[in-house]
Amino acid sequence: MYTVSVRSHVMIAHSFRGELFGPAQRLHGATYVVDVEFRRPELGAEGVVIDIGRASDALGEVLGQISYRNLDEVPAFTGKNTTTEFLSRFVFDQIAARLRSGALGSGSKDVTALRVTLHESHVASASFEGPL
Amino acid sequence: MYTVSVRSHVMIAHSFRGELFGPAQRLHGATYVVDVEFRRPELGAEGVVIDIGRASDALGEVLGQISYRNLDEVPAFTGKNTTTEFLSRFVFDQIAARLRSGALGSGSKDVTALRVTLHESHVASASFEGPL
Amino acid sequence: MYTVSVRSHVMIAHSFRGELFGPAQRLHGATYVVDVEFRRPELGAEGVVIDIGRASDALGEVLGQISYRNLDEVPAFTGKNTTTEFLSRFVFDQIAARLRSGALGSGSKDVTALRVTLHESHVASASFEGPL
Amino acid sequence: MYTVSVRSHVMIAHSFRGELFGPAQRLHGATYVVDVEFRRPELGAEGVVIDIGRASDALGEVLGQISYRNLDEVPAFTGKNTTTEFLSRFVFDQIAARLRSGALGSGSKDVTALRVTLHESHVASASFEGPL
Amino acid sequence: MYTVSVRSHVMIAHSFRGELFGPAQRLHGATYVVDVEFRRPELGAEGVVIDIGRASDALGEVLGQISYRNLDEVPAFTGKNTTTEFLSRFVFDQIAARLRSGALGSGSKDVTALRVTLHESHVASASFEGPL
Amino acid sequence: MYTVSVRSHVMIAHSFRGELFGPAQRLHGATYVVDVEFRRPELGAEGVVIDIGRASDALGEVLGQISYRNLDEVPAFTGKNTTTEFLSRFVFDQIAARLRSGALGSGSKDVTALRVTLHESHVASASFEGPL
Repeated sequence: MYTVSVRSHVMIAHSFRGELFGPAQRLHGATYVVDVEFRRPELGAEGVVIDIGRASDALGEVLGQISYRNLDEVPAFTGKNTTTEFLSRFVFDQIAARLRSGALGSGSKDVTALRVTLHESHVASASFEGPL
Repeated sequence: MYTVSVRSHVMIAHSFRGELFGPAQRLHGATYVVDVEFRRPELGAEGVVIDIGRASDALGEVLGQISYRNLDEVPAFTGKNTTTEFLSRFVFDQIAARLRSGALGSGSKDVTALRVTLHESHVASASFEGPL
Repeated sequence: MYTVSVRSHVMIAHSFRGELFGPAQRLHGATYVVDVEFRRPELGAEGVVIDIGRASDALGEVLGQISYRNLDEVPAFTGKNTTTEFLSRFVFDQIAARLRSGALGSGSKDVTALRVTLHESHVASASFEGPL
Repeated sequence: MYTVSVRSHVMIAHSFRGELFGPAQRLHGATYVVDVEFRRPELGAEGVVIDIGRASDALGEVLGQISYRNLDEVPAFTGKNTTTEFLSRFVFDQIAARLRSGALGSGSKDVTALRVTLHESHVASASFEGPL
Repeated sequence: MYTVSVRSHVMIAHSFRGELFGPAQRLHGATYVVDVEFRRPELGAEGVVIDIGRASDALGEVLGQISYRNLDEVPAFTGKNTTTEFLSRFVFDQIAARLRSGALGSGSKDVTALRVTLHESHVASASFEGPL
Repeated sequence: MYTVSVRSHVMIAHSFRGELFGPAQRLHGATYVVDVEFRRPELGAEGVVIDIGRASDALGEVLGQISYRNLDEVPAFTGKNTTTEFLSRFVFDQIAARLRSGALGSGSKDVTALRVTLHESHVASASFEGPL
């Protein structure tokens, strides 16, 4: 199995609901350094999993939807705790949709699995992975 | 599959038995930077894999058992080479036991797999992973 | 010249005023991974620049003042852009005050300079340094 | 499952054929920071997956074949795009052959899977993994 | 003294002349992960050292001159060994010229010093620093 | 001012004397990831600060003196707390002596300053720097 990984980042504000979160129930924020891993059993004719330039552009486009935003006010997230886990799944679903539509060019539909990891600090991260 | 990862570290002394180890047969030591990854197929009500605060506390508690110790003198390790691999398994078993007892709070028993990685330098690491 | 460095992190929300900031004028947030370097020309009797445990505690105490907060609502920052540069200076001043009062124990008053660096992502950071 | 990972690096020149690659069709180069992960279900008598010294030596030997070379002129790669993905597979195959011949010593034939990752920058990497 | 740092990278081919360089006399290449630190004694009205967006753009523009190139064929470098040290100075001079011309916007002429670091692997780097 | 930096690591055991050290008074150990920065105002004829291969060899030779050792039993350190600060100075002095004797080849005597940093974990480090 081959994997290609690209990295970008995004800075957001949000708050959590639930006693579990302690002081993180207050409005605060995070920088997420985001890795997306694209998996494919065989390489295409050019010898790549996917066009890394298009992969980076797609990640930038997805993160652009939440970049410099207060996630508490994003309609799509109403009633949700936008935890690192939740946002990993959000990025996964958005990249997966772009792959299914062929938007990442040749090889888009040959990617069989994705893993998205959000690093929230030097000591904690979360990820979501699954087949496509 | 969702994953949450927490990081801490521990500093220990030990020595190894066996010609394989060359100069590491002498009493020496290591800093291990330790990552524990908790895996769970679905998120709980709060939108998390597990309470990250409790996960960090549990890791601190486990590492506290060996912190600033000469592992050659720890009764539980008598007759064992406390290699990076061996210690990855030790941390795995200790965290797994805490999950099974529910000590990490809501979600403790929903974690289906763990991966523990010990980084012994900028060029080497070992890990143990498995289902719970 | 000897230096000792300790690291911690903090997660905050804020917004900036000024066209320069583009989309960062909106309420957003950041994780800052914070390094504090303590400089001293000669070591004390124990062979250290400063008690690293107390240094970490002091850093935790300083970051605790802004942790999980919306900095736009912190009275001490009213009318200020809480940029990465500004916050580096804030941490510097707070640690410097604790050194001057002797709060970091033996050696507090022998530290002659500090450098505080806030990493806001994997590609950007800011710092403030100066003599005490 | 146990894993042991070793890291080294290599610096090469090459060019790519195909419009997909844009400016990378020109002769350019890369530093690859290379991680090889060796997986084994149970530890050997000494408590290790494999002799880490021999693993590092094997990686050095494999990378030595391409180190400080223009890959466009390496006969084994004629007609191939030596992408990061392709080179991950090259290193995988070379290490796998050494394991099968027993060249990494005790445990060589007990390693059941490998993952090779080449980091080409702070924002991109590729890997190849598979059973042995 | 305040510092702001931005990071990017570039991939190039080149060769060195001189026995000192051993196998690096052959055509090979490198990924350089490049940090540029901008220093300024006091912050401007907005609370920043310099517009970080413009700083990143300037770094991209400078690296674009050598990106995906064989430096042995770049006229400006004829007769030079394009070592990591030499290229650090090249980036320094190019950024300095843009600051002197005011091309980085408000604060361009208030930056009093620069440090440029090129990381060529996980174990080696070079830098050039100086006043403006 | 030009700087070249090389990295290696060493694993040792030791204990500290003094209540300040709390549990670190017990025999324990550390991995130190060691960076040595060589500074020189102008480059030599080849375009380098110093031969990076010889610099790495010299660092390996210095660390070899303490590698896989219990520092409590090293005669040269009798009566000393071998803190991270102390060991930074030890490495500095050893590299400085090699530079003064010309052992690092052409440019040895043109290096005007050194900085040695020992990273003891992902959250703490110490360094010693000075002119030669």
